[in-house]
Amino acid sequence: MQNGLLRVLHFEGLLGYQYIRTTHGKQFTLYSYHGGANGWKVAIVLEELSLSYETIYLDFGKQEHKAPEYTKYNPNGRIPTLIDHHNGDFVIWESCAIILYLVEKYDKDNKLYVTDFNERALVTQYLFFQASGQGPYFGQAMWFNNYHPEKIPTAIDRYKNEVIRVFGVLETILTGKNWLVGDKYTIADLSFITWNLVIDVGLLDGFGSFNMEKDFPLVLKWHRALCEIPSVKRSLALRAKLMAQ
Amino acid sequence: MQNGLLRVLHFEGLLGYQYIRTTHGKQFTLYSYHGGANGWKVAIVLEELSLSYETIYLDFGKQEHKAPEYTKYNPNGRIPTLIDHHNGDFVIWESCAIILYLVEKYDKDNKLYVTDFNERALVTQYLFFQASGQGPYFGQAMWFNNYHPEKIPTAIDRYKNEVIRVFGVLETILTGKNWLVGDKYTIADLSFITWNLVIDVGLLDGFGSFNMEKDFPLVLKWHRALCEIPSVKRSLALRAKLMAQ
Repeated sequence: MQNGLLRVLHFEGLLGYQYIRTTHGKQFTLYSYHGGANGWKVAIVLEELSLSYETIYLDFGKQEHKAPEYTKYNPNGRIPTLIDHHNGDFVIWESCAIILYLVEKYDKDNKLYVTDFNERALVTQYLFFQASGQGPYFGQAMWFNNYHPEKIPTAIDRYKNEVIRVFGVLETILTGKNWLVGDKYTIADLSFITWNLVIDVGLLDGFGSFNMEKDFPLVLKWHRALCEIPSVKRSLALRAKLMAQ
Repeated sequence: MQNGLLRVLHFEGLLGYQYIRTTHGKQFTLYSYHGGANGWKVAIVLEELSLSYETIYLDFGKQEHKAPEYTKYNPNGRIPTLIDHHNGDFVIWESCAIILYLVEKYDKDNKLYVTDFNERALVTQYLFFQASGQGPYFGQAMWFNNYHPEKIPTAIDRYKNEVIRVFGVLETILTGKNWLVGDKYTIADLSFITWNLVIDVGLLDGFGSFNMEKDFPLVLKWHRALCEIPSVKRSLALRAKLMAQ
């Protein structure tokens, strides 16, 4: 999908090379962070829908996500934010709200969505479960395990137990089916991928009796299947490359 | 709005008096917890839309939210869950997904919703901000301040700082307007009420230079205005009564 318009993004250039003053000519500008989970969620959906976009990776080390050139778009100072240049430069943030916007407006064939009203409500239900139940708690587990200035065993345990509890909830949900809603993957499934990458980073290795293969085989199978989707593979390969730099 | 059907809820009665085997005759059954924030979010929207519902308050002390009679509806084992007896006993959980379902299906006059596509996307954006940015972090602040088995100053500070950061984001968003989206309150505004009750419970008293009136006057004005809505007043009065028991 090509964007015939040339757009000028008016960045003031205060924040260095990451901000572009360009005519990228694509439909969307996506503000992201290579090391975060939620920007990739949007990238994967844009790839799946073959929508054209330019990604601007913010430099968190330089606090670009807290700078006024960015917070004028997203007062929360988090990533991602999407600007739709085919919709009057409409600005939207919160990754799950963005992917809902994308399928409702641009996924005319319901490739990543469903048609039935009740099933749409269930897609939304799982998006909120991802956004409120998976993301924040997996994030806290990573924080207290890897980054908190002191090691606090009770806090580490609290959040690792929550990761395992969420895997258990997903295992129950996936019993007897391959995807969260309907007979194909939707944005609901895709939304869980990047935080479920904790499966392979050793976060839970040696924690209690945790055993992903034995305890959560359906979650593992589901996650592996999602990671084999070509657009997901591309996005995760790019993520790995950027994180290695 | 009356429900002409008589419905029988098949609880096994294993969990005692909280579960009802009844013909309540109302359109919805709402599973809630009197001490939680998210059940009241749904109750307020049901009240606003004059929809008939019966609330079943689960006894968390008895782990009723983890019992199979409940998790067969909500595998996450959290509240709220709503069953719509006028829609084939459709079951939906996640409070923000529930209130979106309610306005999309039953708020024909858009009392709590908006008509414009972009504005609807912004309502969804703020619901995700509430669900992922306010709820979990305000909850962690309460947990480490009041309930964690040990006092961990760095964890308490982490989350109190996050509460203050979120108030700051809301203060920015509310600058120059009374409501989050459009010229009236919507489900987006209503979704923030119950966690913003932390304003009055002393959680942040004496923390750094925190001063709600001085630092976040627009958030305070907005929250106070929301609390004056008759249906909100009724719900919060019932909540206070149940919590005092």
